[in-house]
Amino acid sequence: MTVHPLWEMYPTIQKELIETKRVMEKSVKIRNKEITETLQLFFDAGGKLLRPAYFLLFSKFGTIESDKKRYRMAASLEILHVATLVHDDIIDDSPVRRSMPSVQALYGQDIAVYTGDFLFTVYFHLLANATNDLKTISLNAQSMKRILVGELDQMNLRYNTNITVKQYFQHIKGKTAQLFEFSCYEGAHYSHAPKTVQLQAKRIGYNIGMAFQIMDDILDYKSTQEDMQKPVFEDMKNGYYTLPLILAMNENREAFLPYLEKKTELSNQEMKEVQQLIEKYKGIEKAEMIAERFTNKALTSIKKLPDIAEKDILYHVTEVLLDRNN
Amino acid sequence: MTVHPLWEMYPTIQKELIETKRVMEKSVKIRNKEITETLQLFFDAGGKLLRPAYFLLFSKFGTIESDKKRYRMAASLEILHVATLVHDDIIDDSPVRRSMPSVQALYGQDIAVYTGDFLFTVYFHLLANATNDLKTISLNAQSMKRILVGELDQMNLRYNTNITVKQYFQHIKGKTAQLFEFSCYEGAHYSHAPKTVQLQAKRIGYNIGMAFQIMDDILDYKSTQEDMQKPVFEDMKNGYYTLPLILAMNENREAFLPYLEKKTELSNQEMKEVQQLIEKYKGIEKAEMIAERFTNKALTSIKKLPDIAEKDILYHVTEVLLDRNN
Repeated sequence: MTVHPLWEMYPTIQKELIETKRVMEKSVKIRNKEITETLQLFFDAGGKLLRPAYFLLFSKFGTIESDKKRYRMAASLEILHVATLVHDDIIDDSPVRRSMPSVQALYGQDIAVYTGDFLFTVYFHLLANATNDLKTISLNAQSMKRILVGELDQMNLRYNTNITVKQYFQHIKGKTAQLFEFSCYEGAHYSHAPKTVQLQAKRIGYNIGMAFQIMDDILDYKSTQEDMQKPVFEDMKNGYYTLPLILAMNENREAFLPYLEKKTELSNQEMKEVQQLIEKYKGIEKAEMIAERFTNKALTSIKKLPDIAEKDILYHVTEVLLDRNN
Repeated sequence: MTVHPLWEMYPTIQKELIETKRVMEKSVKIRNKEITETLQLFFDAGGKLLRPAYFLLFSKFGTIESDKKRYRMAASLEILHVATLVHDDIIDDSPVRRSMPSVQALYGQDIAVYTGDFLFTVYFHLLANATNDLKTISLNAQSMKRILVGELDQMNLRYNTNITVKQYFQHIKGKTAQLFEFSCYEGAHYSHAPKTVQLQAKRIGYNIGMAFQIMDDILDYKSTQEDMQKPVFEDMKNGYYTLPLILAMNENREAFLPYLEKKTELSNQEMKEVQQLIEKYKGIEKAEMIAERFTNKALTSIKKLPDIAEKDILYHVTEVLLDRNN
């Protein structure tokens, strides 16, 4: 079994992620072989396992009692993440995920609904078998609720041409930063790291998550179909107006409105024109600057963590992950 | 606040169910007002609150520590039930639920996906705040997982004209009996009732759930649109071949196949012809006999419970609920 090449530089965490992946694969073994195989293929398709990785790294700032349970905990975070991806693909009607057909493209939306639901139960089940601490259960429930409230918020923002930067931030906080924040925090909390480290973990996770999502959103405007694992310009067509567009629109709203009014009917030529407009108003550069600000906040906070080897790994991984030129 | 008239005869349990409903309504209050209002209307639209009711009744066979937490527990079961209903309506593309438009008819399938997911998190959150017992959490996770594995099984049975009675039983066990069984068992377990009562509760819940689902499936073949809260013949058109049809088909498979091959294309006239065929081969009577067998098993087991007032209520409610002529 292997994990994403990102982890090759760090053999210890790589080994732990392989264990985590093993738990994930085992946890989805059910009577329904198609679903089991699809999910196992999906786990194999190169996800970076970032949420488990941050959890595992932060768990080293405290005391580790049982590795077995710790891997279950790490696996639960990725399973929760995949559950939301499977359901997001229904909403976005997305044909591709991680260079593979999405569950809904393979088996239809009906199966995709239940597969996501099934993954929520797997998450819950792993969690229940990974901790004796009711506070951990309760924090998970709260965090999961926040993610879903965020998803529902986001639905209200779709095709809203008046979306503000503040609303966008709130939306990506729920969509992405929440789970990054929680994964880091849960690692520190689970291992009973000092309270100050737990709070730092939260802040670091939040800033990583925000930077990560902004950069992901930038990619949708930057890339060509060939070098991306998902279709381009999908966000805009689906009515998710993200930071590069919002910042460019702040310069000249009227220029963009005729395009946005076409919603899903935007032609390839028109998309190119929008791309040029965004370039003209420096939407991408400005968004990159904001992402960099979040990245720098994360890195500065990581520097303040207690001096153990994992601190350096956290620093390095975060730098690589959020490197604009990567 | 009121609950279904079924409970008017039992003022104590009625009062407890009103408290439970209050917890449910509070638990779905979020920023997104449309979702909150839709769910609150849905809770108000006359569900019988059977799962919470059985939970509450069985909780009286042990020791009750906190009513507040007990109501949360009861509410969590109904929320879990509603979550599965919201997602089922996506699968079945169902326009109506409890005489109201379904969430997906109101807001589209995207919102319905996230609303169901949100309810799963509410369930999880209520649960985490209702018990200090990790075993309870773990049992819930297991039970929820079984329900979802059941839903996925069911998808494989759709439009399968070779479906056997045994497969049908397995399917309704996951779909319905599992949560009835669990609600009864959880009541007894939560209140630390004697182990024998806990086992009886399981058996009783299972038999009630099986009878209940068979009767619900019978209704789909029996009723006219007017007296039902949901469209008729929906199951067959959606490819869910239930007991009356399966039993009738066992008598003359060939007679039914030309109809079933039309799947969703079945005309009203053809549906009437299928109804007549089912009548001819006594599909409904035979299914009713099987339902009665499950009902009798439940009632016989209830009789063996320790002699407290709730035993009589359980007996009476179950009899009323599962009365064929009701």
